Amino acid sequence: MPLIRTAYFVSDRTGITIERLGHSLLKQFEDLSFTEITLPYVDTLEKASAAVMQINQSAITDGVRPLIFSTLVNSKIQSILKSANALHLDCFNIFIKSLERELETHSSLTIGLSHRADNMPDYHQRIKSVNYSLAHDDGTSVKDSQQADIILVGVSRSGKTPTCLYLALLYGICAANYPLISEDFNSMLLPVQLKNFKEKLFGLTIDPIRLHQIRSERKLDSKYASLENCQYETQEAEALMRQEGIPYLDVTNKSIEELATTLIHQTQLDRKVY
Amino acid sequence: MPLIRTAYFVSDRTGITIERLGHSLLKQFEDLSFTEITLPYVDTLEKASAAVMQINQSAITDGVRPLIFSTLVNSKIQSILKSANALHLDCFNIFIKSLERELETHSSLTIGLSHRADNMPDYHQRIKSVNYSLAHDDGTSVKDSQQADIILVGVSRSGKTPTCLYLALLYGICAANYPLISEDFNSMLLPVQLKNFKEKLFGLTIDPIRLHQIRSERKLDSKYASLENCQYETQEAEALMRQEGIPYLDVTNKSIEELATTLIHQTQLDRKVY
Repeated sequence: MPLIRTAYFVSDRTGITIERLGHSLLKQFEDLSFTEITLPYVDTLEKASAAVMQINQSAITDGVRPLIFSTLVNSKIQSILKSANALHLDCFNIFIKSLERELETHSSLTIGLSHRADNMPDYHQRIKSVNYSLAHDDGTSVKDSQQADIILVGVSRSGKTPTCLYLALLYGICAANYPLISEDFNSMLLPVQLKNFKEKLFGLTIDPIRLHQIRSERKLDSKYASLENCQYETQEAEALMRQEGIPYLDVTNKSIEELATTLIHQTQLDRKVY
Repeated sequence: MPLIRTAYFVSDRTGITIERLGHSLLKQFEDLSFTEITLPYVDTLEKASAAVMQINQSAITDGVRPLIFSTLVNSKIQSILKSANALHLDCFNIFIKSLERELETHSSLTIGLSHRADNMPDYHQRIKSVNYSLAHDDGTSVKDSQQADIILVGVSRSGKTPTCLYLALLYGICAANYPLISEDFNSMLLPVQLKNFKEKLFGLTIDPIRLHQIRSERKLDSKYASLENCQYETQEAEALMRQEGIPYLDVTNKSIEELATTLIHQTQLDRKVY
């Protein structure tokens, strides 16, 4: 019977970073099972003590001490967590010392400098780019296309919308998207609306069998979802993108994060927010 | 004149985690300036060598050695990076050894286990939840409300849509949203459509001055955007939410990440994807 360990991701902020890091470290231990618990906003001594009680309770319940992955800036909060009956790996402290030595200066050790709140231009930029993406989804509008940082093209259900929204939310990038449809394949010309924005175009393509599965969930037994039509559309869309010199990615075996980061890397798009 | 250092975030995968971690560490050095460069998908020896060349070039150009923050699973790739003229902080290696000792086993050291691609159910869940959020945005549809994991309510422009999309994309949570409008304030009753889903409701509110600014960008000098109306709407919405026992958050000084993580923490919603 496999032993289940509890892993805690503890942060004085959202916990998003340490949760991702801890999760990917645990994934390296394929044969073991973990219960993963995130404790965000542990930013007072009281919350730190409550966290320690919860962690110690897990040690009793599990019969084995838990793991703590943390990013804690405040040294008092850190040392309270250190008192828990657990293996404690703090990601902040371990690097900040090396950085202080290298940079020959002290860090400010202030909680939550990086992702603040009062960072209004960032918040604003994200909202703006999300609204932009929603207003320019699926060819709804080509107005303001000059404001787009990137315009995704591809057949229906090739993942354009979620990729655009991810780019907007995580990077503050204004991403429009435009579907490629049968008229475009008949003429083998780009939609006229896109003609003046060719340098902004980036294509998505997808394996026809996968597309057939996705479309079948929406419209079972339709021509739209048929494997034959999916093969036709993806083949023509790829031919059109090659003909027009539009770079494209195959989404089939990629997560949305992978799509977004690969695309940013390839196009050298600048992120607008952190 | 402040010296500008180049900081590299190097990963064999998307680089999202190390970029966030590195960025938040650097933010602790407020007086210093950094040029931040992410090098994702460094998953071959050739790419590692190319990265080292680029990093060494920065050392020459900057006149000071760069910083490298990395999460590299493969030890050969790691040691190539180690040869660069830089301070190298690898986040993976430093913790995996402690974990191996604690867990009394070896890690599998396979690149990209955590965020794979062929993790089809995850990809599918995200797409599903994004589509759900889009179809249930701003009260568009209350059909399938029983499928919602959460339903956000609040006045127009209180941040409901981006929060829903963030929950969908990052956590695979099906989040609907429903606006509170003047009819609701006149009657001081929840919209009838929401009556049966009270346990799923969560409110957002916002400082009226901030709301006035946001709305003025959309409709300058309108009644909708006037400070007086913004004060009225937020006050009534908060009163209604209190009366109905709906928990709510003030979005004014929060980033979208903070909103989403606080909300998940408070409601104990389960994430569906990683």
